[in-house]
Amino acid sequence: MSIQNDEQEIRNLVATWMAATRAGEMEKVLPLMSDDVVFLIPGQPVMHKAAFAAAALAQAGKDAPKFDGTSEIQEIKVLGDWAFMWTKLTVVITPPGSGQSMTRAGHTLSILKKQNGKWVVVRDANMLAPVST
Amino acid sequence: MSIQNDEQEIRNLVATWMAATRAGEMEKVLPLMSDDVVFLIPGQPVMHKAAFAAAALAQAGKDAPKFDGTSEIQEIKVLGDWAFMWTKLTVVITPPGSGQSMTRAGHTLSILKKQNGKWVVVRDANMLAPVST
Repeated sequence: MSIQNDEQEIRNLVATWMAATRAGEMEKVLPLMSDDVVFLIPGQPVMHKAAFAAAALAQAGKDAPKFDGTSEIQEIKVLGDWAFMWTKLTVVITPPGSGQSMTRAGHTLSILKKQNGKWVVVRDANMLAPVST
Repeated sequence: MSIQNDEQEIRNLVATWMAATRAGEMEKVLPLMSDDVVFLIPGQPVMHKAAFAAAALAQAGKDAPKFDGTSEIQEIKVLGDWAFMWTKLTVVITPPGSGQSMTRAGHTLSILKKQNGKWVVVRDANMLAPVST
């Protein structure tokens, strides 16, 4: 497997993650992370996979907010079966009804690992902050 | 060089960084990062080495705020000549005179690289947020 292929697989992971989030299909996001994934978020305790899944479930359903967003990959560095990735992420959250959208934007820095031939996120630093629109 | 030695060198880098910051000796911090280092901070554009050095210079001198802090290393993973590190960082900033201290705390996720046999920080995600004291 060439580094170019690994990079492309990681780009595909990001595209799948964003598309599944947009569609509210969080069950498609969970396989994109390892069981021991750690999410690091400003001003909050660490979030593990179970908490991520619970939060995703709470945001599912008809009355849930809608998520949209774009991820601009700034850098992918493949180091054998490990990689790191830096992205610029923008997320637009629209509450149900006539609520006003909220935009959050910022950088992410992620560590990925190839497990059984498949890339997954193992550590994710999320530096999104509110953006006035 | 064993992985244990590499981990110890990275722990030493963190200890040097914290001690130099406490002492206001930012000229000892700059060699601990690569020339192409990128600092990622919530709600701010990326910061490169020149901007880091300028900010450090602006915070030097007798009338500068005092920095203190602790870094608790949560994880170091060495991947050959690369490594990633997760820390819990607390920084206490005390303005000159009788101003009240401000505490910021949170996680960091850093990518390090061994250059000419010496570990340096190349990417640093800083998720510190204000803490009410």
